[in-house]
Amino acid sequence: MKNGVFPGSFDPITSGHMEIIKRGSRLFETLTVAVCNNPEKKSLFSLNDRLEMIKNACRDMKNVRVASFEGLLIDFAEENGIDTVLRGLRNARDFDYEKELADIYYDTGRLESVFLPSRGEYSHISSGMVRELIRGNKDISKYIPK
Amino acid sequence: MKNGVFPGSFDPITSGHMEIIKRGSRLFETLTVAVCNNPEKKSLFSLNDRLEMIKNACRDMKNVRVASFEGLLIDFAEENGIDTVLRGLRNARDFDYEKELADIYYDTGRLESVFLPSRGEYSHISSGMVRELIRGNKDISKYIPK
Amino acid sequence: MKNGVFPGSFDPITSGHMEIIKRGSRLFETLTVAVCNNPEKKSLFSLNDRLEMIKNACRDMKNVRVASFEGLLIDFAEENGIDTVLRGLRNARDFDYEKELADIYYDTGRLESVFLPSRGEYSHISSGMVRELIRGNKDISKYIPK
Amino acid sequence: MKNGVFPGSFDPITSGHMEIIKRGSRLFETLTVAVCNNPEKKSLFSLNDRLEMIKNACRDMKNVRVASFEGLLIDFAEENGIDTVLRGLRNARDFDYEKELADIYYDTGRLESVFLPSRGEYSHISSGMVRELIRGNKDISKYIPK
Amino acid sequence: MKNGVFPGSFDPITSGHMEIIKRGSRLFETLTVAVCNNPEKKSLFSLNDRLEMIKNACRDMKNVRVASFEGLLIDFAEENGIDTVLRGLRNARDFDYEKELADIYYDTGRLESVFLPSRGEYSHISSGMVRELIRGNKDISKYIPK
Amino acid sequence: MKNGVFPGSFDPITSGHMEIIKRGSRLFETLTVAVCNNPEKKSLFSLNDRLEMIKNACRDMKNVRVASFEGLLIDFAEENGIDTVLRGLRNARDFDYEKELADIYYDTGRLESVFLPSRGEYSHISSGMVRELIRGNKDISKYIPK
Repeated sequence: MKNGVFPGSFDPITSGHMEIIKRGSRLFETLTVAVCNNPEKKSLFSLNDRLEMIKNACRDMKNVRVASFEGLLIDFAEENGIDTVLRGLRNARDFDYEKELADIYYDTGRLESVFLPSRGEYSHISSGMVRELIRGNKDISKYIPK
Repeated sequence: MKNGVFPGSFDPITSGHMEIIKRGSRLFETLTVAVCNNPEKKSLFSLNDRLEMIKNACRDMKNVRVASFEGLLIDFAEENGIDTVLRGLRNARDFDYEKELADIYYDTGRLESVFLPSRGEYSHISSGMVRELIRGNKDISKYIPK
Repeated sequence: MKNGVFPGSFDPITSGHMEIIKRGSRLFETLTVAVCNNPEKKSLFSLNDRLEMIKNACRDMKNVRVASFEGLLIDFAEENGIDTVLRGLRNARDFDYEKELADIYYDTGRLESVFLPSRGEYSHISSGMVRELIRGNKDISKYIPK
Repeated sequence: MKNGVFPGSFDPITSGHMEIIKRGSRLFETLTVAVCNNPEKKSLFSLNDRLEMIKNACRDMKNVRVASFEGLLIDFAEENGIDTVLRGLRNARDFDYEKELADIYYDTGRLESVFLPSRGEYSHISSGMVRELIRGNKDISKYIPK
Repeated sequence: MKNGVFPGSFDPITSGHMEIIKRGSRLFETLTVAVCNNPEKKSLFSLNDRLEMIKNACRDMKNVRVASFEGLLIDFAEENGIDTVLRGLRNARDFDYEKELADIYYDTGRLESVFLPSRGEYSHISSGMVRELIRGNKDISKYIPK
Repeated sequence: MKNGVFPGSFDPITSGHMEIIKRGSRLFETLTVAVCNNPEKKSLFSLNDRLEMIKNACRDMKNVRVASFEGLLIDFAEENGIDTVLRGLRNARDFDYEKELADIYYDTGRLESVFLPSRGEYSHISSGMVRELIRGNKDISKYIPK
């Protein structure tokens, strides 16, 4: 039995994120969506707005929790009894980067990593692309959870 | 709660396979190591030898089962109440191939896929490399389970 | 104005192939779907069956022709007044291989290459996967043209 | 018949860009070289200088136009009757990024994407590298159009 | 006989760097570890601290020198009688980037490039990851030279 | 000071191989071009013909030797006082495969590996492509050494 964490900036949360959360919630006993709060990095949405959006989108999944963290993920995981990181992989370019992170999570914090291959029509749309579309006044309703 | 399957030829099973099985056994309620029996493909070890080696190597993991199958993995999974495929990923080259398989497993059989990034000193040694070393009369003890 | 060729084994033609042909037919004055006939390689469908299937699937596209060839694509192109090769790319793994082919097509035959990124729900299903599903008695209707 | 756009920062335009423009001009009825004007990003050359350089380099290609745009490429394409994006691919690393863009161009703006594999001795030199060489007082004449 | 250079920011030097330096020192007559001093980029450790750390870590390798440079590596190489760049490769993602650099080093400065595949338990930990761990107050002793 | 080996099938040797041999001969004290003789794999050129072609092409490089081997490269290396494998890398796809080989060479035989990024106009043409061109009666003079 595992307790998972799905970390990210979620600025904003996308349909692709939601798809990983849904599949991950069936894999773990509990899954914590952990919003990384990096004060040095400007975000389009405030931390509070991001947390609210995610809580709303995940309210029907009983074993999904939403939280924020600063600093290292391995510290957040240890303090919250979390043993496994969940990540979505869209392509080979993602993989080499995520592999490097997974190695250091395990090496410094005994934190396991599990990857889900992305799936579905809108899974390729990243938060960065959604922000571009928002700036360009486009309809983004199909790329984000309702 | 998920029932996983770890499919492969296992000709022979390697330390890298064992490492994925151990980590996978903690992730799933049950994990079935499924030896693919392809009569058209010559193997170095007979199906029986392969099954025996794996059973031996996995005997201390209570929720790990060992079986063989012919034909499609999605049929084997359906017949055995399995809902998730477990695969190890060593590098970006593996990813694009495994992504393609994961897409078709889900599309034709509603079979989920979960990837674990490979880890550890001998995880890079494939069965094919071990067969080469056996043919060259090398000591392979550290690349296979005891 | 360009005359394109879309070469392949098409054993059998898939929905992913059709999607590239449709998009390619809008890009070129004429597009020739060229079935490679390699007598040394066993195919599941005969050359005639493959040609029939493709002709049927492409009959509504006025500027699409269907033909077969043996030997080198650069010779077929030269004999048929074709100046550009069309290829679909599904992932980064495809790219490095196709780049190598494109280099030699240009270098030996002044044949240009144009790549279309694959798109759509079933674009990831290769002919090899379809053959596996046929052998396993699965319904493949959504992976091939009607 | 297609109207293409080749978007970029072109800070400055390189021999590799020129090679893609030449090949693209033969593929499309018209090809618009569209200089992205991003006021938040510092450029080495001013927008006007970049436009002048490109106009000069492309003056012998009758169906090539040069323009600048701000905001989203899909809006620029719609306003200018453009239906296809042209991009050069140098390596597999480029591919995964360009595939993501191509997906969103199509998904939000029905904008098709066509990739040309880069070719030629100096095709690997990016604008960023040319800027470094300029800062280091190196001769860059072979990496940029005359 | 070749004189090599191993360039980098080394902010700070890692066990992975040391492993490449050790193997490189056996390959070249002399190997210069060249710390890039980029005044526009903030570093965690000062240039002097970085030079001291590297000199300390390399003091037992007789043919290894330590230096800093500003501007272009090809100029530094020419001024110091260096003919070959040494780089470590961790994964396929590194390769496409390093290939681009190697092409321009040779093209503009006749500077050869030699790649060593990374090896060893801690070779995957980059300077950036070590900086994160330092900020998070973690023990980093196994990721850096003594 | 190192003694290198450049292993391959060389069926036939190409301009790309020659380019790696020339650059490698400047890197090592001696470089042995080692033709792999695999009796189970059909080759277009006989072992003797391949050896003759390579000897001819390399006769002006004083520190280059030509030999053939059967079985494992690590055994050939040990018997011949060779400590380093030389390999050319054309793209990211090559890398992941070569990295796996490099790991096992070192792990089982303490054999170091050094990679050179391919370079030059014809470096992309593999032996397999040259064989295809020979079967198609094309002029291959620029893809092979004189």
